[in-house]
Amino acid sequence: MKDQSASGLGSFLPMLEWAHQYNRDTLVSDLVAAVIVTIMLIPQSLAYASLAGLPPEVGLYASIAPLLLYTVLGTSRVLAVGPVAVVSLMTATAIAEHAVIGSAHYAAVAITLAFLSGAMLLLMGVLRLGFLASFLSHPVISGFITASALLIAAGQLKVILGVKVEGHNFFELVAGLVNQLAYVHAVTAALGLSMVAFLFWARRWLKPLLLFWGLPTRLADALAKAGPVAGIAMTALLTWHFEWHLAGVKIVGTVPAGLPPLSWPQWDMALWKDLAVPALLISVVGFVESVSVGQTLAAKRRQRIEPDKELVALGASNVGAAFTGGFPVTGGFARSVVNFDAGAQTPAAGAFTAVGILLAALLLTPALYFVPQATLSATIVVAVLSLVDLRILRSTWDYSRADFSAVVVTLLVTLAAGVEAGLVAGVALSLLLYLFKTSRPHIAEVGLVPSTEHFRNVLRHKVKVSERLASLRVDESLYFANARVLEDRVNALVADRPQLAHLVLLCSAINDIDASALESLEAINQRLADASVCLHMSEVKGPVMDRLQGTDFLNHLNGQVYLTHFQAVSELAPDMLK
Amino acid sequence: MKDQSASGLGSFLPMLEWAHQYNRDTLVSDLVAAVIVTIMLIPQSLAYASLAGLPPEVGLYASIAPLLLYTVLGTSRVLAVGPVAVVSLMTATAIAEHAVIGSAHYAAVAITLAFLSGAMLLLMGVLRLGFLASFLSHPVISGFITASALLIAAGQLKVILGVKVEGHNFFELVAGLVNQLAYVHAVTAALGLSMVAFLFWARRWLKPLLLFWGLPTRLADALAKAGPVAGIAMTALLTWHFEWHLAGVKIVGTVPAGLPPLSWPQWDMALWKDLAVPALLISVVGFVESVSVGQTLAAKRRQRIEPDKELVALGASNVGAAFTGGFPVTGGFARSVVNFDAGAQTPAAGAFTAVGILLAALLLTPALYFVPQATLSATIVVAVLSLVDLRILRSTWDYSRADFSAVVVTLLVTLAAGVEAGLVAGVALSLLLYLFKTSRPHIAEVGLVPSTEHFRNVLRHKVKVSERLASLRVDESLYFANARVLEDRVNALVADRPQLAHLVLLCSAINDIDASALESLEAINQRLADASVCLHMSEVKGPVMDRLQGTDFLNHLNGQVYLTHFQAVSELAPDMLK
Repeated sequence: MKDQSASGLGSFLPMLEWAHQYNRDTLVSDLVAAVIVTIMLIPQSLAYASLAGLPPEVGLYASIAPLLLYTVLGTSRVLAVGPVAVVSLMTATAIAEHAVIGSAHYAAVAITLAFLSGAMLLLMGVLRLGFLASFLSHPVISGFITASALLIAAGQLKVILGVKVEGHNFFELVAGLVNQLAYVHAVTAALGLSMVAFLFWARRWLKPLLLFWGLPTRLADALAKAGPVAGIAMTALLTWHFEWHLAGVKIVGTVPAGLPPLSWPQWDMALWKDLAVPALLISVVGFVESVSVGQTLAAKRRQRIEPDKELVALGASNVGAAFTGGFPVTGGFARSVVNFDAGAQTPAAGAFTAVGILLAALLLTPALYFVPQATLSATIVVAVLSLVDLRILRSTWDYSRADFSAVVVTLLVTLAAGVEAGLVAGVALSLLLYLFKTSRPHIAEVGLVPSTEHFRNVLRHKVKVSERLASLRVDESLYFANARVLEDRVNALVADRPQLAHLVLLCSAINDIDASALESLEAINQRLADASVCLHMSEVKGPVMDRLQGTDFLNHLNGQVYLTHFQAVSELAPDMLK
Repeated sequence: MKDQSASGLGSFLPMLEWAHQYNRDTLVSDLVAAVIVTIMLIPQSLAYASLAGLPPEVGLYASIAPLLLYTVLGTSRVLAVGPVAVVSLMTATAIAEHAVIGSAHYAAVAITLAFLSGAMLLLMGVLRLGFLASFLSHPVISGFITASALLIAAGQLKVILGVKVEGHNFFELVAGLVNQLAYVHAVTAALGLSMVAFLFWARRWLKPLLLFWGLPTRLADALAKAGPVAGIAMTALLTWHFEWHLAGVKIVGTVPAGLPPLSWPQWDMALWKDLAVPALLISVVGFVESVSVGQTLAAKRRQRIEPDKELVALGASNVGAAFTGGFPVTGGFARSVVNFDAGAQTPAAGAFTAVGILLAALLLTPALYFVPQATLSATIVVAVLSLVDLRILRSTWDYSRADFSAVVVTLLVTLAAGVEAGLVAGVALSLLLYLFKTSRPHIAEVGLVPSTEHFRNVLRHKVKVSERLASLRVDESLYFANARVLEDRVNALVADRPQLAHLVLLCSAINDIDASALESLEAINQRLADASVCLHMSEVKGPVMDRLQGTDFLNHLNGQVYLTHFQAVSELAPDMLK
């Protein structure tokens, strides 16, 4: 069953799985993809760094070492690792409590956060704790991503409009923006809003236009992806030409050129303790985002990714970011899809992209001087608005109220109290709702469908029943939270039926019985015995039966265990068969 | 199905269900039971009050109003409400942080705690939140009760030995006792240890002895129950006669005679906030203890109790305790069993007991002056040691390691860090273990048992399979925490089987599919489509199918839903039938 190449060293270094098949064709595909992704990543990296409250060059640094490390350790062939919107926002939130934006301490805390988050991911990978990420349910993730995107967009809108707004949550931000509408900086707003309009237009219409102009498909594709960069270059040129920066348009300014610096996390236990929860949340959110992107893309080529190895790869990427002046990173959706579409065949494309960004960090930074901050914010707003998914409200409302309430609570708490509170509230609520649901299992009294061997709910079907025998089907595994429900149901049944002599539990949907439920069954058995009713069981699953056979319960049982329910009924209440 | 008398006013006032059938026979039975229970309750109430750190008369007060209120509101016919060992210990722990033992403030905090705990129970009853108590699993309760009993016994042993020991946890208490062995107060220890020996002897041998002496069974029974009271009276007489109280034997001393005082909880929000968690834990533990006793006894007479009404009754009892100078109470095991065995027919027996204890509070208190404290401690130790159940360690170890670890963690944390930490740790761990278990569902690949229509695990049985079709049976409801496991399994399967054309999910054990799992199924379907594999489902349960039919999933499904798995296989892989 196992892939040959996955054994031995390859299971530690996923790179070895593809490196030996590397050839000229793969190289060309990877190089082309790398060029396209590099062009797209440069403005995105700058923008996400500023979203995280960090200098723009940090965004470039965070896209170099992590990409290289992922190339060696990652199991996805096309995932591109670097700064992403939601994780950048979470980073900003986590650091805000410890340092002032722009200070050296702020950058040091960002590095420490990347280190902790990376260390946690590595640990989870080594201990194979990847399943922990499953506790972020889809409704919680949806609500969280949508709320984060709205928070980010509201925060960037003030940069686009050139106003100053303070707000501790989404609603305060929006109220502040409305209050400041009279003080909008006209040129900044014109630049920023035109950029937003251009980006939306380019996403939909640039490629068709280029094709219409007769360009070959492949070139049109590549140019369309470079559209945003062209837009940014245009606004920078305009700003330079008209000297708008002297008129109050805020620009990126001097970006130091050079290699990523060697950096160290702070070895400050008090800080580590404070950052532990944010780092954990960043790890888990980053992992979930990365794995779901990776899985979606891998499946398209019948490849697969291994979540526990992904934890190690992402952990190493974050630790790498910490030692090269970066901040928390993960596998991003947009860049990975671009990488995939551009034809990347192996993770080597990521390594080439890293080289491209390294060159940009060395040579291109002077060109960034005149880029207006409003332009970068515009790219963020357009990117994050595509993450807003309000249809989930409608679809979960239709499907299940429990899921709906998880979406709404996560969404509202994130908007009102921030990313960390929102995530924690969402996870806690969805776990409670799940426990609540399983703690009230569906227990149906069933009767015999005439002239068959099938049993159906007496409330829904015309079935045969007997005064002396009751059949209960429990549609849930029995465990501590629902064992008492069964007890109550049985007690009520026995109290209501003076003629009752046999109770048969139909166990076909019981996948497990824990010690508390076993205790309840013992109690039920004892109480039924006191009331002269026999307790029987039918269609007990193999693994459940194995476990029961190790206990005294089957010896105490004052009835029998039947292979099929029909067999139980034929023997105990032959009158029902007539 | 519903009892006639349970409708209308009777559903609010359970008393009306039995009051109209009350007659002379019932009265006599209830009166006899009341006398026996009263005699037993007097020393027990004093002892538990001192365990809670309160003056002895408070124990009497706490056994009057609560009993009367439960008579009117309770649904159990025989439950006796009052101070119990574990709740008294929890009360002492909760108050210790806020007041000094013996101060007026201490008693005021106890009253406030009873009020809060009662208010919470009432609220849970009105909101029908009784199911919350189910989250205390049997292993957690066992571990908790055993640890509490050991804590209580260790704490009382210092009174019995007449030494002073300070200790913040069980291990410190035991170490302290060992260190103080040289300073044991001889007379106190002699009295206390003889009393312990006498109580153990009386429990086992007093009734046989009385019968041997020729007493009628009923009288022997009643006298045997009065044995402990006789023992206490004897030690009091000895102490009075030999003036041991002047030689350092601590005695109960002056117990004020009189009616229970009218008292008020403190309206101090800061205190309420601090007491909220302890009050909640006391409510839940008290409720669980009370309901399990009530259910066990009710079943013996084919009666039943209604947990949500029990919440209201216990809540009212605790609020009653708060307004009459008491402390938190609940339905006790020992006294309820005595009440039941003594032949109590209706809750009126409880009311008569309350009158008996009221008379004791008015008239008997001078007689308590010379009772040695070591004697009361001896009654506590003997009572709680019967709660210690270490066999649970062996039985859960054999049955399930998850349950075993819940017992051990609850036990050790309670011993090491106290009752509140122990309970919280136990509940948290058992919920996590349950989630962990359901997050790794058993997923079996199944094949056709030759010449039948049955399917079995390919790893365990000789079955027929096909290269083109794979059948997966998922033995768990699909929800967010395990949806990804199924995705991983399917991804691995598809990556390993280049010939695969059909995947059929056998859904007979899937009781629910939540929104996250639906999303996963959509993703699986999409990925399988990308890999040219059809996804089918078979034996989907009615409620699950109802829900799926409200969604787009069935339209997207690139395969079909089959009624039976055999049908799916016959159609998709007829070669398997050969």
